Amino acid sequence: MAEQFVEFYYKAFDSDRSPLAALYGHDSMLTFEASPSQGVSNILQKIQDLPFKQVQHQVATLDAQPSDERGGILVVVSGALLVEEERRPMSYAQTFQLKPKDGSYYVFNDVFRLVYPAA
Amino acid sequence: MAEQFVEFYYKAFDSDRSPLAALYGHDSMLTFEASPSQGVSNILQKIQDLPFKQVQHQVATLDAQPSDERGGILVVVSGALLVEEERRPMSYAQTFQLKPKDGSYYVFNDVFRLVYPAA
Repeated sequence: MAEQFVEFYYKAFDSDRSPLAALYGHDSMLTFEASPSQGVSNILQKIQDLPFKQVQHQVATLDAQPSDERGGILVVVSGALLVEEERRPMSYAQTFQLKPKDGSYYVFNDVFRLVYPAA
Repeated sequence: MAEQFVEFYYKAFDSDRSPLAALYGHDSMLTFEASPSQGVSNILQKIQDLPFKQVQHQVATLDAQPSDERGGILVVVSGALLVEEERRPMSYAQTFQLKPKDGSYYVFNDVFRLVYPAA
């Protein structure tokens, strides 16, 4: 499940991003590089307005754990992000909590951070 | 709250690690570099048995979001890890879910990964 979600998520993110709207709900939270958004419309606007239009995520690690006794799933990804016109990929870490809804899942928590090489 | 927790956690981890026992419960989960442990005794044994005895965590970023409507907190940390005899620090990302218990909190989810520089 976690792998399917991550594959779908980055495939959508790396194309036109609009399918991501289906993955969030009115109570979803995104913290993107310390900048917070809440609710599907604010989150999608944030994601659509990011300064880079072309981006490619390459997943390096994926961990998942149950996050509660009601079917929630914690998903932690690390990987590389290749942004248009930047030659060097950057490392990132992204944490999701997926919660069950209507026989499927939606993203309740989403925290994204670039991870810089330690000095 | 999240900041207090993170400060306490790494201070304990970077000294003798035994105070970490107070932070986990019987249903806590740790995934450390893809290796899973469950329950306070297994998790403490895993942490105590790590090959490095001296370690120093330096927190670079800390994000927190509510993880449910019952007081849970998602805490995402990235930073640098300096291990004994290694000159170069490594980057890491660690995700916790804290859940309320008996007027305090315990770690329900814990996922740790080293994050390597993107190629």
